[in-house]
Amino acid sequence: MTTFGTAPDASLPLPTVLVTALSDRFGPRLSRGESVRLQHGRDESKFPPAPPDAVVFVETTEEVAAVVTLCREHRVPVIPYGAGSSAEGHVLAVRGGLCVDLSGMNRVLAIHPEDQDVTVQAGVTRLQLNRELKGSGLFFSVDPGADATLGGMAATAASGTNAVRYGTMRENVRSMSVVCADGRVVKTGNRARKSAAGYDLTHLFIGSEGTFGIITELTLRLFPVPEAVAAAVCAFPTVAAAVQTVIQVMQLGIPVARCELLDALTLKAVNRYSKTTLSEQPTLFFEFHGSTAAVEEQSVLAGEIAREQGGQDFAWATRPEDRSRLWQARHDAFFACLQLKPGATPFVTDVCVPISALAVCIEDTIKDVQASSLPMPLFGHVGDGNFHMVLLIDGANPEEREEAERINEQVIGRALALGGTCTGEHGVGIGKAKHLVREHGQPAIDLMQVLKAAIDPDGLFNPGKILPRPA
Amino acid sequence: MTTFGTAPDASLPLPTVLVTALSDRFGPRLSRGESVRLQHGRDESKFPPAPPDAVVFVETTEEVAAVVTLCREHRVPVIPYGAGSSAEGHVLAVRGGLCVDLSGMNRVLAIHPEDQDVTVQAGVTRLQLNRELKGSGLFFSVDPGADATLGGMAATAASGTNAVRYGTMRENVRSMSVVCADGRVVKTGNRARKSAAGYDLTHLFIGSEGTFGIITELTLRLFPVPEAVAAAVCAFPTVAAAVQTVIQVMQLGIPVARCELLDALTLKAVNRYSKTTLSEQPTLFFEFHGSTAAVEEQSVLAGEIAREQGGQDFAWATRPEDRSRLWQARHDAFFACLQLKPGATPFVTDVCVPISALAVCIEDTIKDVQASSLPMPLFGHVGDGNFHMVLLIDGANPEEREEAERINEQVIGRALALGGTCTGEHGVGIGKAKHLVREHGQPAIDLMQVLKAAIDPDGLFNPGKILPRPA
Repeated sequence: MTTFGTAPDASLPLPTVLVTALSDRFGPRLSRGESVRLQHGRDESKFPPAPPDAVVFVETTEEVAAVVTLCREHRVPVIPYGAGSSAEGHVLAVRGGLCVDLSGMNRVLAIHPEDQDVTVQAGVTRLQLNRELKGSGLFFSVDPGADATLGGMAATAASGTNAVRYGTMRENVRSMSVVCADGRVVKTGNRARKSAAGYDLTHLFIGSEGTFGIITELTLRLFPVPEAVAAAVCAFPTVAAAVQTVIQVMQLGIPVARCELLDALTLKAVNRYSKTTLSEQPTLFFEFHGSTAAVEEQSVLAGEIAREQGGQDFAWATRPEDRSRLWQARHDAFFACLQLKPGATPFVTDVCVPISALAVCIEDTIKDVQASSLPMPLFGHVGDGNFHMVLLIDGANPEEREEAERINEQVIGRALALGGTCTGEHGVGIGKAKHLVREHGQPAIDLMQVLKAAIDPDGLFNPGKILPRPA
Repeated sequence: MTTFGTAPDASLPLPTVLVTALSDRFGPRLSRGESVRLQHGRDESKFPPAPPDAVVFVETTEEVAAVVTLCREHRVPVIPYGAGSSAEGHVLAVRGGLCVDLSGMNRVLAIHPEDQDVTVQAGVTRLQLNRELKGSGLFFSVDPGADATLGGMAATAASGTNAVRYGTMRENVRSMSVVCADGRVVKTGNRARKSAAGYDLTHLFIGSEGTFGIITELTLRLFPVPEAVAAAVCAFPTVAAAVQTVIQVMQLGIPVARCELLDALTLKAVNRYSKTTLSEQPTLFFEFHGSTAAVEEQSVLAGEIAREQGGQDFAWATRPEDRSRLWQARHDAFFACLQLKPGATPFVTDVCVPISALAVCIEDTIKDVQASSLPMPLFGHVGDGNFHMVLLIDGANPEEREEAERINEQVIGRALALGGTCTGEHGVGIGKAKHLVREHGQPAIDLMQVLKAAIDPDGLFNPGKILPRPA
């Protein structure tokens, strides 16, 4: 691994009186050991580790409130930690401070099948939740690939493969409990399907990346397990043909449940890593949900569109185990790509553009790929206009680092010029603050700064994330 | 009409220098005439008129910015005005000030059929938009009944009959331009289907009722016009049987496009007002959207559920003109109800509860209805758990006013105890501030106050709305 971005800011050691107070309350659940700190100071991103000064393992909302109150008293940063699966350095303690590990808050508190919602502690992971929902006839839809915690997914506005049909975290959180800067617990929203009762605090916290408060509980929307599910892969002669297929599927309003593009290099990586034998060509992975008749109707339509674009016949994964294997391979694509250049540092792009701009955005990006010597597999949630490239670089090689930065800048500039965003789903973290002004304009960034200063006046919640430090 | 709530706060007349500056810039588009002021100081609510000191008719975002800057300089309140169709006193100038009439900002700026979105000025109304979308194969789904402006609908988080399938304004605004307190224009969000790039400013403004800034442009999500549409009415022996049908339809995940309950008294009013001959029994109005096969499948399923609950056979409105007539009658239900007691002041409730609590909430509310001498037809968007009662009172009769207040309190208390909200879609306005603490808890209200103070430090945007005045 290598250094990207700036080095951690200087931070003071934790005040002894704070350590004593935490130690008195949490006993062995407070850790200052190096390995625990290091483990909590890194994620899946390209950024070098930035360990916190200590880690506290909390079990209740009240404990989080007590920790926040103590840290505020001593002006110590607080960094919430779930599964450490962030792709943008969200959990890195770039200004030191106390890491609050919420993974022990892993209880499903209440399932309400009649209301199609569930209330969980923030440390429950999405796979755990779906295991606990088995037999209820319902499932939680948001699926970013990693087995992230639901608190972390809300904090980063996660999405993933299913979002094209069921929405991102923004559409799937009904209410939350959040510990705020003054140590009080704010309850946002309620379990009604809609409300117009005052400011929308739920969406205020979704995507705030731990900089406004610590999410401790969530009520999430669930969907009925579809009567029928069908998954298919379809290989195309070119990426452009695959993208055109996606655009037409979306524009026809076919309610695909998943619609993923993988380019030829990604397929090669996947075949090696997951022992699959998929054709090493640009390929779409589809999934259709609905009644048996609706699934049949959707897949016939999508198949016709694909054929018109030169796609091969759909190869169906009909048995549940084949389907799981296919999607596991898709989810492992990132790790598969890492093996294309063992030891490489991955530099992952995450732009998202309006569907009408997807073809030109991807076609021009492929020219970047072709002009570069770096391996950079391309894949993503194209039904949403969101795609990733994994730029595989030798972190010790400044030229490769520079080239990756340059290509990332190009892709982001292109997406913004097309009316898109620098991050479809990974979030800002520590790496993308510099693109926000270009994306949103100075008045919007100033308003974001106003919000941050008002909600977290001492700037202790996950400092160094999202916004550049105010001048 | 009669007085509800407190009398308008004392307000100073507009400073002459401000009037001169506005007059220089806007000429005859600045009005201080009594009839124009009165027209802009009332809405569809039970509250007495509170006219602004003047009205300015704006045509561009830049003009709105200039007005806000001038008013700030002179510490004068600014109240945005669209179609005046608010149900909670949102446009009433309870502390005087300048009304900014946006109805002249009525241009559809860009339709992007490929991206299924449209950019409009804030004064475009929903019916105008759907007229301009004719032939595009797309429609704008949010339908609160009234022909409200889209800016007003975003500001109040409007929803209505289609929300059960297509979502409320919260799910249908992609981005906005908003003039903020400092007179700068904040652009929120972008046209990509999703983004994780910083704080969610779009949702910050949706439902903020003009208290954070003035929305001047919006990019809205559109949906493909469904291949097939079918509407049906179904009469039931009791309200309970109708509600049970709705609950089962929702729990089975049948994607109904509309699902409305009207009680027997509402049906009686509708028949008189709209010259329909519907059975004067508790009735569900359904609409199904999709492919021909999907619509057939959905309506057969819903019909079976209704029959099990003692519902009559579905009466279909198959021709477009019959369907329009049916939904016009539903939209006119409020006005129809007013005719049940000519000259009465309507006091409209708007609770929304989780679906599992809908049956008990409505059944207990019917006991309130039966114990009262006031006519109070009940109808609403029951697929979302949202229903209204129109309490028809003689505004000059303090006993009737008191009884209406008491029943409203009971219904709200019941909804909150069941995990619901005091307002599903009408908003807080000037009447519901007193319920917010009970609904959200003091920490959430304090956070809302923090937001208001930070975003509108002089408190000039639509003062007296949403939040009680801070202590």
